[in-house]
Amino acid sequence: MGRVIPLEDVRETGQKLQPLLDLVSDDLEAINRIILDKAVSDVDMIPELAHHLIDSGGKRLRPMLALASAKLCGYGGNGHIRTASAVEFMHTATLLHDDVVDESATRRGRKTARMIWGNQASVLVGDFLLGQAFKMFVDVGSLTVLRIMSNAAATIAEGEVMQLAAAKNTSTTEDDYLSIINSKTAALFSAAAESGAALAQRPTEEQAALRSYGKNLGLAFQLVDDALDYAGDSSRLGKSVGDDFREGKITLPVILSFRRGSNDERQFWNRTIAEGEIADGDLEHAVSLMRKHKAIEATFERARSYGSIARDALAIFPASREKDALEQVIGFCISRTH
Amino acid sequence: MGRVIPLEDVRETGQKLQPLLDLVSDDLEAINRIILDKAVSDVDMIPELAHHLIDSGGKRLRPMLALASAKLCGYGGNGHIRTASAVEFMHTATLLHDDVVDESATRRGRKTARMIWGNQASVLVGDFLLGQAFKMFVDVGSLTVLRIMSNAAATIAEGEVMQLAAAKNTSTTEDDYLSIINSKTAALFSAAAESGAALAQRPTEEQAALRSYGKNLGLAFQLVDDALDYAGDSSRLGKSVGDDFREGKITLPVILSFRRGSNDERQFWNRTIAEGEIADGDLEHAVSLMRKHKAIEATFERARSYGSIARDALAIFPASREKDALEQVIGFCISRTH
Repeated sequence: MGRVIPLEDVRETGQKLQPLLDLVSDDLEAINRIILDKAVSDVDMIPELAHHLIDSGGKRLRPMLALASAKLCGYGGNGHIRTASAVEFMHTATLLHDDVVDESATRRGRKTARMIWGNQASVLVGDFLLGQAFKMFVDVGSLTVLRIMSNAAATIAEGEVMQLAAAKNTSTTEDDYLSIINSKTAALFSAAAESGAALAQRPTEEQAALRSYGKNLGLAFQLVDDALDYAGDSSRLGKSVGDDFREGKITLPVILSFRRGSNDERQFWNRTIAEGEIADGDLEHAVSLMRKHKAIEATFERARSYGSIARDALAIFPASREKDALEQVIGFCISRTH
Repeated sequence: MGRVIPLEDVRETGQKLQPLLDLVSDDLEAINRIILDKAVSDVDMIPELAHHLIDSGGKRLRPMLALASAKLCGYGGNGHIRTASAVEFMHTATLLHDDVVDESATRRGRKTARMIWGNQASVLVGDFLLGQAFKMFVDVGSLTVLRIMSNAAATIAEGEVMQLAAAKNTSTTEDDYLSIINSKTAALFSAAAESGAALAQRPTEEQAALRSYGKNLGLAFQLVDDALDYAGDSSRLGKSVGDDFREGKITLPVILSFRRGSNDERQFWNRTIAEGEIADGDLEHAVSLMRKHKAIEATFERARSYGSIARDALAIFPASREKDALEQVIGFCISRTH
């Protein structure tokens, strides 16, 4: 099932994240301390549930973008640390609600919070983390950052509702799908990347450039995520290959295979994705149809194309260690295997 | 079952809200327009679901508090309109998530959104409304208001988690219960009342006075709500008498009856509330035990006591039409029958 990935490639992919990790390593420690601090509550269930997800080995990609963007823009204060921590809280809140909505059993190779503490607690602790995130943004004190982040919060939820409305609907177009991932994923990447320029009060063109970089990076990231759900290596991915298939989630590999397929094949997609009637061997057949129509390759190809837009968006910045780190993240997002 | 409420009393209670309604009627129309405007989205499900709840005849008590507090403080701008609208959005978001968590079937006499559009959509549209609320607070541009509201958002969620942790636990104390309603209900009343003073940039003692007024008004409101769930008139309440009993919710009438009861009676509460084994006639028996131990009267008595604190908190303000309206709301909250 899994794409065969030579060890060399895996090392190379990891290396592409290294410049960013090196750039922000000190700040990342500060962020981890703030996250511990702000997930505290007299209500025991809150830190327990929050830490389950926060400590589960996420890449902290979004907060790292916020940190790197602040450095790229020569920001001299310390508001970027709190901003980046709050971005991670927003992301965590979204994941908690996502897992409830998708009825997911595992995330990053562990049981989801809802399987341990229940859907009710997951909804409420998500709300708590979002509230804490906004408290942190208020502490930073930038109305511009607050505007960016409140826009992102509403947009993410809008994207999730769109995704829910499109669920199991095989007539979803690539444009519909792009609207969904633009809202549910790219909005937070974009907000994180833009926040550094906003904090540093850089000219609007730099803010717009980082916003565009983040948005297109987020699109590439989500496209690769959706491709890996059919082509990835379960042990590295921390989720099972085929989760999206079993949940009837409409992603680009399905959309392309459906559109490029024969009538018989469309009937297969309607039975499995739309009607949820999945038998043994159906996942393998789905992957073989995707291979036949080069739907996974095309999804990676689209990701590369958004990656190029992200790279071009950064072009207005002069060469620097920060710019290089942000450019290499594009490569990481596109060639990652988990 | 229902308390017999003479028509005179009902009229009198309604009259207590009239001065506030008269005070803010113009602004309230503007708020209704903003709410229509901001619940809009390209995603059809969002306005449909949002309007189901927003148009369902809520009293708009929280936004009216924000408006009246701004007027009391002589605020000359128009940020109070947007602030009050956002407060109503926050409240609506909380109700959507509450109904999911409590698995409620009806609210204000209508089917809950989750019964029509499902739990998933209710969670996500709640998130969307919270995001829109913060966008509106950002538009107002007061970091003080943003601080008050982000604190309230985190506190409300914390209270809901506390309530979830205390569910079906008959050993919950009155203090535990007070912590819960202080967070889940009083925090938003308090934030709404404080916001006017914050917008008008009044001295901290006035801000503190309105914060205290709102908090104690909210406590009184919730205590009466919990009493009415056993003593109210279903047709007026818009929810069924006994909902809390059937959900195993621990409210003050139950806490007092349990503590004041015999061992046999405690076994009854453990069987019904803790274990959820409810037979025909149990609700009637519960109410008769509450009567025997004067648990409902005591709950109303506590509400009156918090009402007094709310009244005293306002004492530092000179007499005015606004102060009178806010004082009369206390009477409304305490003597309301629905």
